[in-house]
Amino acid sequence: MELKSLLEQRSETSWKNYIPHISIDSVIFGFHDGTLKVLLLKMKDQELWGLPGGYVYKEEPLDAAAVRILKDRAGATDIYLQQFYTFGDLNRSEGFFEDYPDTLWNKQRFISIGYYALVDYSKVGIIMDEFSTACEWKDIEQLPPFMMDHRQIFDKALLTLRKQLNNKPIGYNLLPEQFTMPEIQKLYEIILDKKLNRGNFYRKLLRYDILLKHEEPRKGGAHRAPDLYSFDLEKYQKALKEGLSGGW
Amino acid sequence: MELKSLLEQRSETSWKNYIPHISIDSVIFGFHDGTLKVLLLKMKDQELWGLPGGYVYKEEPLDAAAVRILKDRAGATDIYLQQFYTFGDLNRSEGFFEDYPDTLWNKQRFISIGYYALVDYSKVGIIMDEFSTACEWKDIEQLPPFMMDHRQIFDKALLTLRKQLNNKPIGYNLLPEQFTMPEIQKLYEIILDKKLNRGNFYRKLLRYDILLKHEEPRKGGAHRAPDLYSFDLEKYQKALKEGLSGGW
Repeated sequence: MELKSLLEQRSETSWKNYIPHISIDSVIFGFHDGTLKVLLLKMKDQELWGLPGGYVYKEEPLDAAAVRILKDRAGATDIYLQQFYTFGDLNRSEGFFEDYPDTLWNKQRFISIGYYALVDYSKVGIIMDEFSTACEWKDIEQLPPFMMDHRQIFDKALLTLRKQLNNKPIGYNLLPEQFTMPEIQKLYEIILDKKLNRGNFYRKLLRYDILLKHEEPRKGGAHRAPDLYSFDLEKYQKALKEGLSGGW
Repeated sequence: MELKSLLEQRSETSWKNYIPHISIDSVIFGFHDGTLKVLLLKMKDQELWGLPGGYVYKEEPLDAAAVRILKDRAGATDIYLQQFYTFGDLNRSEGFFEDYPDTLWNKQRFISIGYYALVDYSKVGIIMDEFSTACEWKDIEQLPPFMMDHRQIFDKALLTLRKQLNNKPIGYNLLPEQFTMPEIQKLYEIILDKKLNRGNFYRKLLRYDILLKHEEPRKGGAHRAPDLYSFDLEKYQKALKEGLSGGW
């Protein structure tokens, strides 16, 4: 079914079930193969990409709605999820539905609450919904054009990661359980959007005393395998509470 | 007029003018006489205190509504105002209006966007509205009981100040243009909720090189007057951008 018919068909139920004027947009980050990725979808009959989102049931707490929407999309629970900003400008999305009847659910003014999620890339499976023709991980350094104000929402989420890097368990939630020093450095460089000096970065990380070094390096390859590390969760949480001091 | 009649009388206009289900709550901070204060109001016929708030006109951007509400209450524009969190639990305020008709504007479920404001205490004048019998600055270390979930909103705002102390111009916006070292230390102690060692605090502040020392100390008193300082705004902004590193 084409998008227009589908939206019109769902409109009445949406008006009945959801709180009007409120939506949720999720910025779902995953780290894989040295690149930070975000989960985007393409709606039927559309060229632009958008963030997965949804609405809040009339008797559902806001945070519970964000968890449900994430589960519907990434099939995973127990994921690190944080509200980061609420977007309330005029004409955020109304223009997109210009050619639709005024009574269409999607055509009203929406104030959207942004949540970001940090997922272990290897543990989630993408789930497509009926409104979309594609749902993919996109490298944040090569993003396609976005629909509506979704680029602005994405940018604010990334800025929030950058600001919270020393206070929230962002590395822990994006990296696999065991990682190499080059991997964590790469992740920090992408989030901070700058090259870091390798020696300085290693020294700082080690000084914070938040990592455990594993005895067995990763196998494979002809050269000496790189050392593997994990977060020492207790020390990491304690350090974050105080805030890792100093720039990178 | 008593509160009930007044709310019922206004209900129809509110439904006509405002976006349903959306409200704004403002946590307005001011610093005076060595105490951090918050502006609270007491509604007619009520014993508990609440935060000043309001609603969003159908054709008004969210941030513009927050500015308008602040102006209506503190009579001031050009005030440092930041969105900090959106509160979306069930039954935030519905119980308060239990005895009212279901069609009352105020009785619907509201998702409330929290903004905090930092004002120069000496420059604002409190404005009472028709729903209130009192509007006062309250010392945050001696707060009265709050209505609805307003204590939770206040606590989250204060926690946000604490987290942002090294990244946002919080001292600058709360202190008068010229201040003494004991004054800024007191403000930091209140926000951080801990005693700071005087010598360490002074050394850190001076090392950041963000203050200007004035030639003329404050007059009055028999003893030597304390030195006066101001923020060196350019250096302060630059330092905040990097983030003042390290705990206090």
